[in-house]
Amino acid sequence: MKPFETVALRFDGERIWALDQTALPLKENWIDVTDPPDLIAAIQKLGIRGAPLIGVAAAACLGQYHPSGRDFVAVATRVRAVRPTAVNLAWAVDRLLKAHHEKRDVCDEAFRIVEEDRLLCERIAEKGAALLQDGMTVITHCNAGALATGGVGTALGVISRAHRQGKRIHVFVDETRPLLQGARLTTWELKRAGIPYTLICDNMAASVMRTLRIGLAIVGADRIAMNGDFANKIGTYGLAVNCQYHKVPLVVAAPASTVDRYCPNGEAIPIELRPGDEIRPLEPCWNPAFDVTPAEMVHRFVLDSGVYSPQEYRDFIRRE
Amino acid sequence: MKPFETVALRFDGERIWALDQTALPLKENWIDVTDPPDLIAAIQKLGIRGAPLIGVAAAACLGQYHPSGRDFVAVATRVRAVRPTAVNLAWAVDRLLKAHHEKRDVCDEAFRIVEEDRLLCERIAEKGAALLQDGMTVITHCNAGALATGGVGTALGVISRAHRQGKRIHVFVDETRPLLQGARLTTWELKRAGIPYTLICDNMAASVMRTLRIGLAIVGADRIAMNGDFANKIGTYGLAVNCQYHKVPLVVAAPASTVDRYCPNGEAIPIELRPGDEIRPLEPCWNPAFDVTPAEMVHRFVLDSGVYSPQEYRDFIRRE
Repeated sequence: MKPFETVALRFDGERIWALDQTALPLKENWIDVTDPPDLIAAIQKLGIRGAPLIGVAAAACLGQYHPSGRDFVAVATRVRAVRPTAVNLAWAVDRLLKAHHEKRDVCDEAFRIVEEDRLLCERIAEKGAALLQDGMTVITHCNAGALATGGVGTALGVISRAHRQGKRIHVFVDETRPLLQGARLTTWELKRAGIPYTLICDNMAASVMRTLRIGLAIVGADRIAMNGDFANKIGTYGLAVNCQYHKVPLVVAAPASTVDRYCPNGEAIPIELRPGDEIRPLEPCWNPAFDVTPAEMVHRFVLDSGVYSPQEYRDFIRRE
Repeated sequence: MKPFETVALRFDGERIWALDQTALPLKENWIDVTDPPDLIAAIQKLGIRGAPLIGVAAAACLGQYHPSGRDFVAVATRVRAVRPTAVNLAWAVDRLLKAHHEKRDVCDEAFRIVEEDRLLCERIAEKGAALLQDGMTVITHCNAGALATGGVGTALGVISRAHRQGKRIHVFVDETRPLLQGARLTTWELKRAGIPYTLICDNMAASVMRTLRIGLAIVGADRIAMNGDFANKIGTYGLAVNCQYHKVPLVVAAPASTVDRYCPNGEAIPIELRPGDEIRPLEPCWNPAFDVTPAEMVHRFVLDSGVYSPQEYRDFIRRE
């Protein structure tokens, strides 16, 4: 596998390094995730997170591991099951397993996944940026940026592209409890890109929409079902409800690897339940990591292949 | 003034003590708020919070201060302005100023305010409990309990009363960012009362309403305008939007002292903006402490005088 470098992942030709996202923005620690157990641990504790990035990191790690000859299928199967909701992980591992079974070069396939994700992000950014107008204020939830992908990001990639096109964009950032990916990661990216933003608590989004003119809400996705229902970070569905109520268009930006062709609708998406102490120790908590938003609440899907209404998305997926 | 004791406030005949709510639930520290500057500091840092309790504490402090003879009007005016949104503070101070100007006994008037709040809470609890049915799951935001009043509370008072009537009630508790009054204070009260609850992040309320059968949402209020628009802890409006979308009735429980007869509608309610570092240090934040929910989103107002639909509330207020 050729060396590569993204904002969150590096392969130096020998070892694979991931930026530990649990330590951001306070520290920029790179951790060695060359060995599959280290990768698994990093994904479990959300040191590596973001649906596309998890897929890319798993591809890189397993691609590098494959030549060792040791029970590749068993190890790949374990990696595949680390987090259940995002489909990109399973999608990436399945591609490597297929290459393995077909006796193709697994390393090559892994590197293709890494390269593809970068390109998919570019296309999403390019197609989505057309939805953002000069002077627009937008709102986003969680982190769907370079830290969540192998490229410029999905939702944040769209925003960055519009910004680089000279459009003045202001971003309201949901802090995204319980793990504060918005407050820690999205602000870190926006600051680096020089894009003006305002951080809010998740429960303030309704007031923002009521009192300011919000052009659109844009988020990523961890899995999109065939009917267009999609899973994303917990709180996305609440944001979608606010969008409906305040007539703010909701835009979902995601690569093709996020579409699950075996999943008919949102009810079939498994939702990961995480430990309650992520919310607060010693309290009875309910802590779903994701929620599902019905397709009809989405204004536009921005995929690498184009921009679709829910009906257009369904037509496109079935036709393909 | 006769000695009195509530869950959050004590007068021992000489000094006034407040339970420092910033330290709860980790520590139960009682702080001396006998001197008006100490009271002001405690209210500013939210050591004393909750619209009715702020009014009661101000009444007790100023009632005790009055015999000192030192510029009562100036001191009372300063106390009155400490927090702008909740109207109970201004209402309580105005009653003492009126007694002062009419040369009535200010101490007596202060004690009446303290006593009244306890009775108002009892009546709210009694009237509101009828809305809760055996087996109901409800959701609440922030803390509208004994810690927020001089009695059993408003929204939580209603829940406690229903629980004591033998109804099985389960409470979903919004943690209530940024200062976590739900996670710190409401859970503390529910635990003491033996009422089962589940703590969630604010952004999970939408998913709770979508996936479980929620009987009603019940909250307190910091100010209710003449048309029924009301201000309450930031996030209440978002909860109201979720209630509308999921057809969950929203109930507002508050004493008569929360009704502002000089405020025609929600637009006239001043919203306190607090420092951004309550959300996150060193970030550009927007941190309104309250939001306004339009009257028409309310299913029932539970006041000490009765239970009203928005239209009945308006008729009642104008008739009175």
